[in-house]
Parts: sequence; C-alpha cells; structure tokens
Amino acid sequence: MDHPLICHIIKNVTLSVEESEKILNYFNYHEYNKKEHLVREGQPCEQLYFVVQGSLRMYFIDEKGMEQTIQFAIENWWMTDLMAFQRGGLSEFSIQTIEKTQIMQIQQEKLEKLLVEVPQLERYFKNIHQRAYAASLLRVKYLFTMSKETFYDYFSGKYPEFIQRIPQKILASFLGFTPEYLSELRRKKHKERVKTI
Amino acid sequence: MDHPLICHIIKNVTLSVEESEKILNYFNYHEYNKKEHLVREGQPCEQLYFVVQGSLRMYFIDEKGMEQTIQFAIENWWMTDLMAFQRGGLSEFSIQTIEKTQIMQIQQEKLEKLLVEVPQLERYFKNIHQRAYAASLLRVKYLFTMSKETFYDYFSGKYPEFIQRIPQKILASFLGFTPEYLSELRRKKHKERVKTI
Repeated sequence: MDHPLICHIIKNVTLSVEESEKILNYFNYHEYNKKEHLVREGQPCEQLYFVVQGSLRMYFIDEKGMEQTIQFAIENWWMTDLMAFQRGGLSEFSIQTIEKTQIMQIQQEKLEKLLVEVPQLERYFKNIHQRAYAASLLRVKYLFTMSKETFYDYFSGKYPEFIQRIPQKILASFLGFTPEYLSELRRKKHKERVKTI
Repeated sequence: MDHPLICHIIKNVTLSVEESEKILNYFNYHEYNKKEHLVREGQPCEQLYFVVQGSLRMYFIDEKGMEQTIQFAIENWWMTDLMAFQRGGLSEFSIQTIEKTQIMQIQQEKLEKLLVEVPQLERYFKNIHQRAYAASLLRVKYLFTMSKETFYDYFSGKYPEFIQRIPQKILASFLGFTPEYLSELRRKKHKERVKTI
C-alpha cells in the first residue's frame, strides 16, 4: 500500500491492509487547476483536504481589502477551515490552490463514519492537529521576534523547494512583508550567494 | 464522578466509572500562587496542564523585550508548550498563572500510558487540539480584520467575567493594544454603559 495518504498515516499509527483499503475508499481523489478555490470565505466548508501533489494556501481579506495568507499546505499536509468543517458553519477563510494540485478529500459525515471503523485515526488526527496548532503559535512568535530577514532565512531554510514554487506576493503576505521588500531581499540573497560561489 | 476534568471529558467521549478513576489517578493536583511560572521559555516543558480553577497565560518576549501574551487558559482549558511537551525539547513560550490557580497536571510519559489504557482520550484530545488550532487562526484573522474596538467588544462579549480578572497590561498585549489605549477604551465603554442606564 504505497499511496501517499496511507504512507503518511502509517508513520503515526498502525493499519492493516483492509483498514488502508477502507480509508482509501472513503476518500475522493480530485485534481484542481492552478488558482482554483476549494473553499470561499462566507461559504460552507464541506471537505477536509489532503495534498497528494501541489500546494494550497489559506487566506482572509484584511480591513484594507488585501489577501492575507495565514497557512500553506504542501504534499502530505492537511487543510480545511476546521471550525466550519466540523460544525457545518460558514468559512472564516478561503482556500485556494497555488499550482495544479492533486487532492484526496473527505466529507465530514464520511470522516465520522471512518473514525468509527478505523479508530486509530483519532490518534493520527490528534497528532496532525497538535502539530498544526503548535506551528501556528510559532509563526506568530516568529513574526514578532525575528527580524524580517531572519524569518525569511528560517522559512526558506525549512522549505527550500517550496519557496521557489510560491508567487512572491503570496509569500510576502505570509511572512508579513510588502512584495517590494521581499523582492529586494531576494535580490540581496542572490548577490550574497553569487559572491560565495 | 463530578470532578471538573471528568465532566469536561465526558462532554466529548464516553467513560466508565473505572476509566474515570484511572484518569484521575494518572493526574496530579497542584495549587499555584498568583504570577507563578509553570513553564519558562528556554526550559523543558514537562507537564500538560488542565485548569480546575483560576487562569493561565502563555507569552513570549518580543524583540523589544516586551511580554506578548498569545493564549489564555481559564477553567476547563488545557495549556502547555505542545511542541516541547511532546518532543521533550525546550519551550518557545512561558506559561504563568494570572491569579491563584488550581491545576490537574500530567507528564508526557504518563499521558502516553493513559492513552493506551483509555483510548477514547485520543478522540478527546483530537477535539481539544482541533478547537485550539481553529481558535488561534481566528485570533490572527481578528487582529488583522477587526478594528481595535470591535475586537475588544468581541472578546469581552465572549468572556465577560474573565475580562474583569485579567490585568489590563496582559489583556492589552493579547488584543494587540497599548495599555494606554485599552485604558482609554475601557473609560469610553464605561461612560457608554452609564449613559444607557
């Protein structure tokens, strides 16, 4: 069973072959185009998304009417508006693909049934939410405590490939920069690399 | 079984009397003084804390050397530096009592054993982390999208009692205000209430 979703789950909990097949049967595979919306702020959020290939971002519109990106999801990451998904309310955030993206997705009711059939998934999702929560607090801390340049170095050191794939405007918003500042910083970093070589 | 910890768990999952007793035996009860530190940034974080009575705050020191409060925990809330607690690393945040506080606390190794003995707790903690994660994203959105006054109204409408219990300086930091602005806003709100009466 070498499906990316199953590979990711068995890093956390044990599954039999039957359970792995059951899980895959509960999910739907879907391909989205670049810049396609999976969820829109103010609309219901009916699915939980697992990124097989590609990337997503979660954003909201700030008081100046600008899009503020608050989270990314790359391969093997989960994303949804959790509150709206769980309670059936309206989304506080929009979710959009950054590039062409392959997704495994599941509806809330189906997920609840699956959790009864494969209860190890409770532990798996506990771990996933725990990490996501810890990471979201860290991002706020880093926004406050790191200089802009240090935060850029930290993020690009942690996700070197991904940083090449994100449009500058979106990355700038996530890092709390203006696009102009990010572009200037990238030119500076490029010059430093050239000097080192 | 009317212990606050058990009452909170059985709102989420089913427990037998034996399981409830087992859970309480795994936890230690501790009373902390006002302004006592449970966790300090840069130190290990060995316990997961459940507030029976009182309140906690999580904070970090920003680049100007100021304390920034990022989370509160009141009665029936959980708090720890999740990353440090789970992986045994050093804390990125400090956790301090706001007032005299009664806590049920558990070490990481003991929690893992308890999760094996009472596996329903995986679902319980999944729900807890999911809500905490969703709430932390919402706080960031509200900081960006609401006017300062609207954010204050939202928070004081949601936690009317708690807002009386927090020192102004700490509340101001959580809401992204200066203490002076918060004090001015409170005076204004008080005048409005007096007029209405």
